[in-house]
Formats: sequence, structure tokens, C-alpha cells
Amino acid sequence: MPASTAARPVRYGYFGPAGTFTQMALLDWEPAAGGEHTAYASVDAALAAVRASEIDAAMVPIENSVEGGVTATLDALSTGSPLIVVGERLVKIRFVLAARPGRPLARVATVGTHSHAWAQVRGWMGANLPKATYVPTLSTASAALDLAPGGDGRHDAAVCAPIAAELAGLDVLADDIGDIKKALTRFVLVARPTAIPAPTGADKTTVVLYQRRDHAGGLMALLEQFAARGINMTRLESRPTKHSMGDYCFSVDIEGHVLDERVGQALTGLKRICAEVVFLGSYPRADRGRAQVAPFNSDADFQSAADWLAALRGLVDNS
Amino acid sequence: MPASTAARPVRYGYFGPAGTFTQMALLDWEPAAGGEHTAYASVDAALAAVRASEIDAAMVPIENSVEGGVTATLDALSTGSPLIVVGERLVKIRFVLAARPGRPLARVATVGTHSHAWAQVRGWMGANLPKATYVPTLSTASAALDLAPGGDGRHDAAVCAPIAAELAGLDVLADDIGDIKKALTRFVLVARPTAIPAPTGADKTTVVLYQRRDHAGGLMALLEQFAARGINMTRLESRPTKHSMGDYCFSVDIEGHVLDERVGQALTGLKRICAEVVFLGSYPRADRGRAQVAPFNSDADFQSAADWLAALRGLVDNS
Amino acid sequence: MPASTAARPVRYGYFGPAGTFTQMALLDWEPAAGGEHTAYASVDAALAAVRASEIDAAMVPIENSVEGGVTATLDALSTGSPLIVVGERLVKIRFVLAARPGRPLARVATVGTHSHAWAQVRGWMGANLPKATYVPTLSTASAALDLAPGGDGRHDAAVCAPIAAELAGLDVLADDIGDIKKALTRFVLVARPTAIPAPTGADKTTVVLYQRRDHAGGLMALLEQFAARGINMTRLESRPTKHSMGDYCFSVDIEGHVLDERVGQALTGLKRICAEVVFLGSYPRADRGRAQVAPFNSDADFQSAADWLAALRGLVDNS
Amino acid sequence: MPASTAARPVRYGYFGPAGTFTQMALLDWEPAAGGEHTAYASVDAALAAVRASEIDAAMVPIENSVEGGVTATLDALSTGSPLIVVGERLVKIRFVLAARPGRPLARVATVGTHSHAWAQVRGWMGANLPKATYVPTLSTASAALDLAPGGDGRHDAAVCAPIAAELAGLDVLADDIGDIKKALTRFVLVARPTAIPAPTGADKTTVVLYQRRDHAGGLMALLEQFAARGINMTRLESRPTKHSMGDYCFSVDIEGHVLDERVGQALTGLKRICAEVVFLGSYPRADRGRAQVAPFNSDADFQSAADWLAALRGLVDNS
Repeated sequence: MPASTAARPVRYGYFGPAGTFTQMALLDWEPAAGGEHTAYASVDAALAAVRASEIDAAMVPIENSVEGGVTATLDALSTGSPLIVVGERLVKIRFVLAARPGRPLARVATVGTHSHAWAQVRGWMGANLPKATYVPTLSTASAALDLAPGGDGRHDAAVCAPIAAELAGLDVLADDIGDIKKALTRFVLVARPTAIPAPTGADKTTVVLYQRRDHAGGLMALLEQFAARGINMTRLESRPTKHSMGDYCFSVDIEGHVLDERVGQALTGLKRICAEVVFLGSYPRADRGRAQVAPFNSDADFQSAADWLAALRGLVDNS
Repeated sequence: MPASTAARPVRYGYFGPAGTFTQMALLDWEPAAGGEHTAYASVDAALAAVRASEIDAAMVPIENSVEGGVTATLDALSTGSPLIVVGERLVKIRFVLAARPGRPLARVATVGTHSHAWAQVRGWMGANLPKATYVPTLSTASAALDLAPGGDGRHDAAVCAPIAAELAGLDVLADDIGDIKKALTRFVLVARPTAIPAPTGADKTTVVLYQRRDHAGGLMALLEQFAARGINMTRLESRPTKHSMGDYCFSVDIEGHVLDERVGQALTGLKRICAEVVFLGSYPRADRGRAQVAPFNSDADFQSAADWLAALRGLVDNS
Repeated sequence: MPASTAARPVRYGYFGPAGTFTQMALLDWEPAAGGEHTAYASVDAALAAVRASEIDAAMVPIENSVEGGVTATLDALSTGSPLIVVGERLVKIRFVLAARPGRPLARVATVGTHSHAWAQVRGWMGANLPKATYVPTLSTASAALDLAPGGDGRHDAAVCAPIAAELAGLDVLADDIGDIKKALTRFVLVARPTAIPAPTGADKTTVVLYQRRDHAGGLMALLEQFAARGINMTRLESRPTKHSMGDYCFSVDIEGHVLDERVGQALTGLKRICAEVVFLGSYPRADRGRAQVAPFNSDADFQSAADWLAALRGLVDNS
Repeated sequence: MPASTAARPVRYGYFGPAGTFTQMALLDWEPAAGGEHTAYASVDAALAAVRASEIDAAMVPIENSVEGGVTATLDALSTGSPLIVVGERLVKIRFVLAARPGRPLARVATVGTHSHAWAQVRGWMGANLPKATYVPTLSTASAALDLAPGGDGRHDAAVCAPIAAELAGLDVLADDIGDIKKALTRFVLVARPTAIPAPTGADKTTVVLYQRRDHAGGLMALLEQFAARGINMTRLESRPTKHSMGDYCFSVDIEGHVLDERVGQALTGLKRICAEVVFLGSYPRADRGRAQVAPFNSDADFQSAADWLAALRGLVDNS
């Protein structure tokens, strides 16, 4: 993680505007407390600002327990100049329906929000506002801000975070309207690859794997590299490589840190058999869960096997 | 595929409005020539209409060579009352930038389109309209229609299909502006599961696989069921099951038809080890490509092995 | 198993002479109680007599817990006209050192026995008769018989079963001299393939697998057929195919009966990918141990998956 | 390989007596030309002499293309104080039937030879001397020597190597009587583990693998360690561990040298998951065949992956 220098505070960006769940994730990142916080209109813009050294790190959404991977983030991370994840935060997603003061639910005919949020409240909408028309917006917070004094929003109500409704001075018509009450979004803090966080014992590693086109076995051969070292995979997303239909790469999270022997061996195994391995960071897990190390795959197991091999190799006749 | 009856033409739905690439896919579906065509405002709405028997089949996008799986379609297919895919079409994606007659490129400050389309023209926009603001719309066609006479679109230009610009009476400011020139979208025709198309020798089968939570091996064990029968997988998408973060199911396309022995055995193997297998159809491939059958996995191979086993079992003493 | 007819008793052969452990295995086979028993000088001769219909079944050794597979039996079973195993017996191996009455241990300079037995008493010999010379004999029992009155044995003592020493009228100089006290030999009753014993719930199946020369994956691909159905393998022996150095086949015992669905599917899978599968029988286990059926691999699991597939296939449009 | 010192020649042992195929293998080992050669009555005795430092190395048979693994050698190598294989030789096996001068084929009623040799001439015997009785002897050469002047052999003829018949002054009644004309035996030169031969580019490595009793996956997990590095296995023998029926270890030859990265990684992987790995040497192949290195498994591939990992690890924040 970028360290504050004497001269200036650390500069953080996030997918804004103020009031997004992404801002909530950044506010939950303790080291960011004293830094500068800048909102960007899109994930792309926030990551471009990191690449351009305008900011030191950016908080962006990567995975939602209801909607799945955030494709803009996955794609922006795996292409362009290298970036790494240096931390993650999990945020409980609680949606409200908010409108300009005075407008009752009965007079809501159009509802603005981000398409991901809309997908998560469709059930509630079908039951409570079956005739409402959906108006897509850039973010949940902008759906709210567009309804603030001076805003040009033409929709009657916004689906957004409670904080966004408050910031825009809106009335909450209905609270906690998400169809899945336990919905979570995972956000990652992304920086230039200058310093990988030291291992904490409860870490994750993220990579993007590109298959060789002519290599038999495909995805199974890649997964085997993890399985052979007892490594647990916590996320797998296939993403098109944009070359041709059916040509995919895989964005993968595993338990463990690049300094762990089992992770190091799996990564070198993948490096050999893949066309490309993009390393996207080793970082502390938000849930502080320690990695499950399968039997015979601890660092001590690897070390004792390496010692045994070294002893054998010492016997080779070099005369 | 739904057959026309004497009494009435077959009723088709599609993700509209008129002018979307989805409509182009439906127009490319020959059997739909004499049917009724109805536009729906969302994939969800089109599939709900099939489920409600308001229409016989709906054409919806499922996979884009640049943006990946269409999550709304994947999720709507795998939940709710059963639907199956009965056909597919591939459509080359060609975007134009279109505006009301008379507006030059220099006066385009805001650009409306669907978020998937926006993701595919970001390069062109960065190079040609770096200061343009993005305005999300429900579809590429609605971005154009909102600019038609009487439309209430406040954006200056739309990114859409050439046909949509024409239908809306717009001027084309720039043609073929997609960053990836070979971009394709795959559309599927979805119906109620009354009749699976007969095998043609060039077929695909689509399933959604839910892992058992306590079953070791996970995704590898599922993929092994295909590998063990030499079955080629042409698409794999992980989707959250919406239960908890990190709980995924897999939407998979394979080569072959449910009547093929190797496919039948793989499906029964999956049925045994998965918590749930949702069968989403066997249907002719749009590209007419015949399945690659790995050695020893033809129907004849399966049949001769089955005959051998039956002969052995005939020797068992039943007295 | 061959059934006795009204006209004549069942004829059994065994690797003799009288007094071998093989005879002990046959005496332990209850159904053989009323039959004719004939000793043969070698495993080959006994199996040839079965093939020639001179006898109905032969008891032969197949596997020793100390010395491993009995290669003469493994090879004789896997070549020639088909034979199957219809039963098995486990016999505890207890060796004695026996000599003509009056000869003390101090005057034993040469010791006769079968080479397999010699291998199992080498420790005792090294400790007690370190200067004794080994004289190979056709069987442990013949080592004893050669010392009986009228025998032409020139060795001073025999290593044999207690019963063989008794039959030959020898004195036992030392009892239970095997280096491994828990040694067991497994014997199988072999018949022409007219009737496979019905399943008992505690069965084994024996096959010989010949790999295709040009088929990638080799042994792992074969083992995967068992692993994919949760089948436990209780014996694996590699045997040369006699074609060229390094060209092996595999003799394998698995838990389960050819009528079990998981066994049937594994066998048909092997039949497809192997150059040849020689079926050597399904028969009750000597130890009565029930097969461990891995989760999702019971006959009921297979049946319900097959029913599901049949229902799907019933939907295919045959018009 | 043991080097000659100024003081004394290298001392070699072999499974004798003179005239065995094992002696032929030792005579074919060029470095042994100036050394002392001592015959031992058994493989066990020859290996014990190496362990006791009475000799520097011993030539023993390990594998026959017709009869399979030589169990006495496999077992003697994998137990006791460590020994390693330092070289191998392949010898074509050509058997003759030899008798005392003057005895014609018509008067041969009993035939002496080693049981392995008898197994290889059974076809010829069945066709030419169907009534001959088999007399087991300690070796093929001793079967001949027993018929030499002063010998006490009571058999009428011996099956042995041509050289043995010549040494014993016997007449050859029939030449080249082996059932398989291309039969080969592989012999290995065994020494104390003081110096592993340097890699030549055409090497083999031999190990014995003991599974953990409670480790799932079993043999497949072991084979996977080779498969994952594209390592070719040229021999696999299962041997009982002598603990209980069905408890096996595996004696395995692979292509490559312990200094090869792919071999080193496979060995450390096995070391972690096995109860025990007994290393039995890396040595030049008798047939000079270079190892087939699967794509992405060369030392350069391993090195470049290791360099990549080291660079990543260099980025970890150690502050």
C-alpha cells in the first residue's frame, strides 16, 4: 500500500460520486483516514488516474454476491499498464427508494439507478411498483444526486444507498428494498505495483490466466496447478479475451500469499503452461479468514522436501 | 422449436425496441419469417412473456465476444419455470455514432447508449470525443429512438446499430466505431421445454451446474465429466447463486446433443455429483460446425462397449 | 461356480501335490466338500485342465502378502481361452522346517523349498542356519515329499506347511519360521466362463487392462475410470505384455460386481479407451467385506440420473 | 560409479555362477574391464556384499521383457541400507537346450533350469518335449554346471545361455528355444550411494513410492506428480509392503535425471505426499535414448518461471 510521505497525504480515488457504496468501502479503509479522497465518474477513470500517478490508489467494486463480477473492473485490471490489488473491503448492500421531498410512492412512475442495482431490486419493484419504468444512470449515487436541488434528473425516484439519499436531501420512500437481504459487494483498493503487502497469514492472491490456444487440457490443467498444492480457489470468472468468440481468460482469487511456497509453486507452474499470467496482487483478506492449508502443503512441508532434494543433488558426481 | 399451427402464426418476442441487434438476430432466423414479432423492453420481460405463454419464443442476447456473458439472460434462464434454448444466431456488431440531422461531431458533448455498447467504443471515444459524457440508456436502439422526432433524449448523439439510426431518422456521424472490428454477439431463441430440436450432427447443449457444497474437488470434478468423454466445452461462465459471496454456479455450453451417448453419459455423471443440473437445451449450432468427437467417444464406441457389458452380464447366474 | 450334476461330482484341481497351501485353500472351499480333488504339478497344468474340461474348476494362488502377485497365475489367466474367477480364499501361511526322523538341526546343510517360500524365511535362515544351501523345488509340499520314504530328495530339510511335513512323515525341527508372522496368500477358484456368481453385496471384480499404444494419458486415464465412479481398487499388478521391454498390461481387482452400475460404467469406459479389457470375473470376497460405495455412486444414484436423462430425451422432437 | 583407486582395482560382483546372463551384462559394462569379478549365488548375496563393502558394485537383473520385474532385486533394493543404481545394461536373452555329450534329444526326460527361464521356453517344451519334467535350479548357469564333469545334476538337460553350455562342456541339442525371440533382460549396476552419475541428457531415475495410508486419491495422486511435469514413466511395478494384504508400494522408473528441474519438482511433490520416497538413483540409459521433454517442462521453462516469481516476490513490502 502506498505510504504517506512527509510532503503530502496519500491520494485516494473511488468510483463516485459521493454516496456510492464504493465511497463507503473507502471510508471503511482505516489507512485512508488522513488522505485526500477524489470521486471519479467510472471505474475506468479511477484506474486511469492511478496509472497516470494522479492518485496513489483507487477503491473500485470487483464482485457482488448477487450480480457477480464487475466486468469493467476485471477488464480494466487485466489490460493496460500493471496494477495490483493491495487490499479489499466487503460492504453490506442496503438499498433505499428515495424521492424529492413531498413525492409519495403512488406518484413514482420512473425509477433511476445503476443497472446492477436495478437487477437487485427487481423483485421489490415487481411487487410494489409493477408499472414503474427503469431509467439507467451512471451510478446509484448519481441517480440520487440528479434529484437534488439543481439536478436535472427526470426520473421520479432513485434506488441508492441511504447515505446518497441523505446527501441529496431526498426522502426515503422505502428502506432495505434489495431482493436478497444478505447482499454484499467486495471492493478492492488498487495501486501501482511498487509494494506488495507483507503476508499476514490471512491473505488472498489474484491472477488472470490466459490459456495457450494449442495446449490440450485447457481449464482443467490450470485448476490442477492449484489442486496439486491443496490451494482453495475463492473466485473464478471467465472473461472474453476479445480476440474471438469463445476465447476466454480466467480471473481467479486463491487463498494464500505469493510468499507462501504452495502459492509460489502453483504460480510458476501456471507461468510455464499458460500463454500469460497477470499477477494482480497478494493482500490481506477483508474477512481475516486464515487460509485452509491442505495436509502436506505447508511451508514446512515444502522446505523439508526441498532439503531432501538438495541433499540428493549434493551426491551428484561433478568430477 | 414451436411449430406454427393452422389457427395462428408463431409469436416471437425479442429484446427491443426495433433496431436492436437482437431484432437483427430474429430477422436472421428463417422460420420466424411468417410470424408475429413483438419487442420487449428487457430480456426479463421477453422471457417472462414466454413463460406466461403470451409468446412462443424469444430471441435474447447471451454472449458477446468483447463484453462476455449477458448476465441478465444467464440469470433469467437458470431460475424460474423451465425454459430451453432451441436455436442460436451470431450477429456481427457494427456501431455507428448517430445524431439529429444537422448536428456536427464538434457539437457532441453527451453520448447515449447501452452500457455494453459504451464499453465497446471507449477507445474510439477517447481518441475522437475525449470530453464526451456518457449517458446510459436502456438499449442501443432506445438511445437512437430517444433522438427521433418527438423523443425526449437529452444526449447529443447515440451509439447504435446502423438500422436503428435509420429507423430514427438520424444522421450517421461516424461508422464502424467499435474498438474490436470482429466483435460478434451470440443470441439464443428461447422457448418452453415442449420440444428439443432433433440432432443435426452440428449441435450444442447448454446446462447450468450447481455444485454440492460439501463435495470435494469442486469445479474440476465437474469438468472431468466432460473431459472423460472427450467433450469440448465452448463457453463457461461462473454466476453467483445469490446465496453468499463466493457461492457460484456454472453456465456451460458443450458440443453435441443430448441424444449423443457421450453427452448423455456426461449429463448423468453430472446429475449424480451436482446439487442440481439445469438443462437449457440441445440445438443446432449457428456456425454449423460439427462436433469434434475425441477418439473412442463416438456413439458406435459407446454402443459396442455397452454390447460387451450386456453379454458379460448375461452370464451372471440368476438361479 | 460349476454346479454338481446328478450324474457326477464336481471335479476340482489344485496346484499340488497334497500338502500345499493351495490344497488347504481348496479344503476351505465349502462347496468342494463332496467333489473330486486332483493335484497338478503346476498352476499352468491346473488351468490347462480347466480349459480342456478335464476338471470343472481349479484352485490356484494369485497373490501373497509378502511376495506379491503370482506371475504364473496372472499370466496364465490373461492369455489363452477365457477363464473366470468364481471365488477366493485367504490362507494364513505358516512354515515349518522339517527333516527325516532323527536328523537334528545341527546336521542340516541344504534346505529344499519353493522359491517363494524361501524368500519368506530368509531372515530365519540367516539367523539360525546361516551356512545352509538353498535347493529349489517345484513346491513346498514336494520339498517335503521328496524326503518321505522312497523319495529321492538330496536336501537335508524342507520348508513347508505343517500338513505337508505330517503327510511325508517328517519331524518338525522348527515351527512358524516365516519372517512375517501375518503372511497371507490369496487363492482363487478358476472356472470356464459359463456362470458368473450372483452379487452378494460383498464382491470383487478382476480385469486385465491393455493400454492403447498411441493413447495419451496412459495408466492415469485408466485409473480415472474407477475414480470417477468412486470405485476402490484393492490390487494392481503390472505385467509385461511380452511384446517389448516397457510394454505393460495391468491386472486389477476392484470392489463391486459387474451388475453394479458404477462397475458397469467403469468397465464400458475402459472398454472404449483400452486396446483390450479381459474380464476375469465377479465373485464373493473371501473376507466378506462390503464394498465402500462413495457418495453419489450407488445403484439408486445411477438409476435416478438415468431416469432424468430418459425424460429429457423423451422431449426430443422426432417429427 | 565407484572409481578405481591407485591401490586396488574396482571389485564387481554379479549373480552367478559364470555363464549367467548377468555375467554377460557385467562383461558388457566397459568400465568393469580391468576390475575383479566375483560371482554370488543369489541377488541377495550380491547386494549384501555391496552393503558390506566387500565389493564396490554388483550387477543384478531387474526386469525381463517376458517375465516382468525381478522381485528379489526390487525388494532387496527398497529395504536395507541405501543403495543406488549407477548404470544399466540390456541383454538379449537366447536360450539353448544342452546335455552331456552323447545324450540325444530323445533321451531327455528331465530338464533343469531357473524358474524364470522355464517360463520362457514352455511353448518350445510343449511342442518338442511334452513329457519332460521340470527340475528347478538356482540359475540357468548352475543347471548347466551341474551337468559338467563332476557335477551332481540328475536332470538330463539344461536350459541356459550358450556361454554356460560351452563353459560346462555340454552339447547343444537345440538353439534359440525361447518362445519370444525378442526377449531382453535389463540389468542394473548397484553401488553404495556415494556418487550419483552426472547427467548425460539420456538418463533414467528410479524411485520406490510408499503411499500414506490415509491419503485420498492414492496411486493417481502419485502419477499426477509426473504427469503435471510431462515426465514419461518407463516402468511401474507394484510390490507388497509386507505389512498386510493389499498394502503396496510402487517401484518406478522415469525418464530424466535428479538434476533436471522437472524431475526435482516431481520428487519434492512426491516427498510431500508420500509416506516415504526411496531414491534409487539417476543413471545413463542403456539405450542412449534422450528423454522426451513435454512442452513447457524444459529446464529453461522452469528457470524463466522461477525468475518471474523471484521478481514478484522482490516487490513484497518487508518494512
